Amino acid sequence: MPKVVPGRLQTVTETEWAQGLIHSWNDANWFDMPILVGNKIAPLIGASFEQVAVGDSTSVNLFKCLGAAVKLNQPRNVILLEGDNFPTDCYIAQGLANLLPHVQVQYLEPRDKLEDVLSKDIAVVCMSHVDYRSARIRDMKSTTDAVKAAGALMLWDLSHTTGAVACDLLESEADMAVGCTYKYLNGGPGAPAFTWIHPNHANIIETPLTGWMGHAAPFEFSRHYSPASGIRQMVCGTPQILSLSALDAALDMWSDIDLDQLWAKSSSMTHFFIDTVESLCGDHGLTLITPRNKAIRGSHVSFTIDEGGFEIIQALASLGVTGDFRAPNILRFGFAPLYLQFADVLHAAKQLKEVLDTRLWDDDNFRKRGTVT
Amino acid sequence: MPKVVPGRLQTVTETEWAQGLIHSWNDANWFDMPILVGNKIAPLIGASFEQVAVGDSTSVNLFKCLGAAVKLNQPRNVILLEGDNFPTDCYIAQGLANLLPHVQVQYLEPRDKLEDVLSKDIAVVCMSHVDYRSARIRDMKSTTDAVKAAGALMLWDLSHTTGAVACDLLESEADMAVGCTYKYLNGGPGAPAFTWIHPNHANIIETPLTGWMGHAAPFEFSRHYSPASGIRQMVCGTPQILSLSALDAALDMWSDIDLDQLWAKSSSMTHFFIDTVESLCGDHGLTLITPRNKAIRGSHVSFTIDEGGFEIIQALASLGVTGDFRAPNILRFGFAPLYLQFADVLHAAKQLKEVLDTRLWDDDNFRKRGTVT
Repeated sequence: MPKVVPGRLQTVTETEWAQGLIHSWNDANWFDMPILVGNKIAPLIGASFEQVAVGDSTSVNLFKCLGAAVKLNQPRNVILLEGDNFPTDCYIAQGLANLLPHVQVQYLEPRDKLEDVLSKDIAVVCMSHVDYRSARIRDMKSTTDAVKAAGALMLWDLSHTTGAVACDLLESEADMAVGCTYKYLNGGPGAPAFTWIHPNHANIIETPLTGWMGHAAPFEFSRHYSPASGIRQMVCGTPQILSLSALDAALDMWSDIDLDQLWAKSSSMTHFFIDTVESLCGDHGLTLITPRNKAIRGSHVSFTIDEGGFEIIQALASLGVTGDFRAPNILRFGFAPLYLQFADVLHAAKQLKEVLDTRLWDDDNFRKRGTVT
Repeated sequence: MPKVVPGRLQTVTETEWAQGLIHSWNDANWFDMPILVGNKIAPLIGASFEQVAVGDSTSVNLFKCLGAAVKLNQPRNVILLEGDNFPTDCYIAQGLANLLPHVQVQYLEPRDKLEDVLSKDIAVVCMSHVDYRSARIRDMKSTTDAVKAAGALMLWDLSHTTGAVACDLLESEADMAVGCTYKYLNGGPGAPAFTWIHPNHANIIETPLTGWMGHAAPFEFSRHYSPASGIRQMVCGTPQILSLSALDAALDMWSDIDLDQLWAKSSSMTHFFIDTVESLCGDHGLTLITPRNKAIRGSHVSFTIDEGGFEIIQALASLGVTGDFRAPNILRFGFAPLYLQFADVLHAAKQLKEVLDTRLWDDDNFRKRGTVT
């Protein structure tokens, strides 16, 4: 947790809420926070000011974008996703297709070449920039070029990118992006997600989630929806101010960071972890599934293991090292370059060796239970 | 602000987040909070345990319900709303109809009798139980009966009901309900909203917002969506835990409240305010638009005034009395029976008299700006 968060929440509760009451929607800028917080995320993803809206969850924001995309790119009616994308991306597309009889979902399998499946029916392609399991980076510029050359819209999921990996949405001329803020941005449990729309589309796109906070004049209380200009229309209902404020405080730390240095640190940390684990734990059957080539490696490292993956992660947790188990057999370790030191990386690798050497994980205490990414 | 909130947020940040890390999704019940918090709201709206899901905004939850309703009640294709409903209800219906070419939105005008417009095409009727302007209560049982007799589904917006007015969803056999928690429940700025689905529908309904947190097994990371049983499928993405925790703390206060006494207090307070304002401010051109009949009166009181409505509310705010201006000419005063005393009601009426008698409002200081309900 960023150390500034408790103090900020104290201000928000005891001053802005308890004393300012509803006047804080104006006086404390609550009303504008979705865009003001978005402005702090923009430099991390290669976007400009007033192009990012923060609020709702990644899932809800995916729905806004996919719904808007199939509407914008009619009569094309297919949503193309990686079958191995983070599940909520697939689920949201399926939910939209279930609602819209003419829309279909098509999956890009690992064996498929993107160019081969980009048919004339594909309205939008939704991909993760960094794969949530392997950490493989899909090249943003060439992928976007291919998708747009085929007449489809390009929607990027930046959940495993933002705050750890270089990203330039405007330079790659992508159409839309979403992402979460509770991983490398450390915005808090379930912190609100973000949405970016290319400025060429921002005023013509039609979000399906037309809430009053995205209206051009919410306090006129008119019967008919009229979208606010720019990214503001992607704000839907009333934003959850406490969660949004914690994220806002966490983002203040980013204002004077040299991003190129930070991305380089991420790359060095993951390299160091791979090297150290392979030399310390080489005989325990771990198989690296993260690219060794740093140019296509995100900020987490994943190994598969035949047996006990879930329990190994639980045993590590008992030693103070937090990784994720990802079904069916993946050990995943994320490295937040703004927060971690190389000593932490070495410590994690040594604890992993300890767990494997002593078979600490092979114990009833480390029973099955889930954790959230 | 409920006094328990800052302490609870301190626990959530410094213990659950900073020390518990992602393990708090299990250890601090974050994963189950949408349902656990819903269980605390259930008694206030006449619902049972495990029937209410908390999260997202009222707008997003309206979309889930309306999308599910037009799917469930095919081939009916019309959404009927009060034209004078709170605008986001109309906007969300319009957004759904814009996405779904076969769906249409029809408005019930104040002059219309509901029974006369309940055609065979109407899939779902969405109404506010308590009107956000006049505070008029629409009878839940007879309205639901009429809607269901005509073959439509009944969706109630309880935003101005919950925590102030008696409500019995199960007894009236309604189909769905949504509501906000930042008015009479005092859950915090933009606190997460709730969704209720009648248990007869909960396992057959198909929400359009199929996020991973509503999946039957979110940690299996399977490609295809499979809904969780019961109300859990209405949870979509990862919940915003800080905002949800503040609401949870605010709701603890309700566990030993005699609700019938509380509803009676609301009714007495609004009666007292009407009486006092009419006797103190009778010559200032205020016209009551709230029912005098307590059986159909919610927990706020509204007057129209020809001139200066916005500025009067601003002038009152400068004296520490918080009301709302609702365009074009409405002064609205809400009375939270759990929090306010009759002395507060008297004080508000006296300050209103002061503002009107001295024409305090007729000053450049009280310029145009918006506030959030």
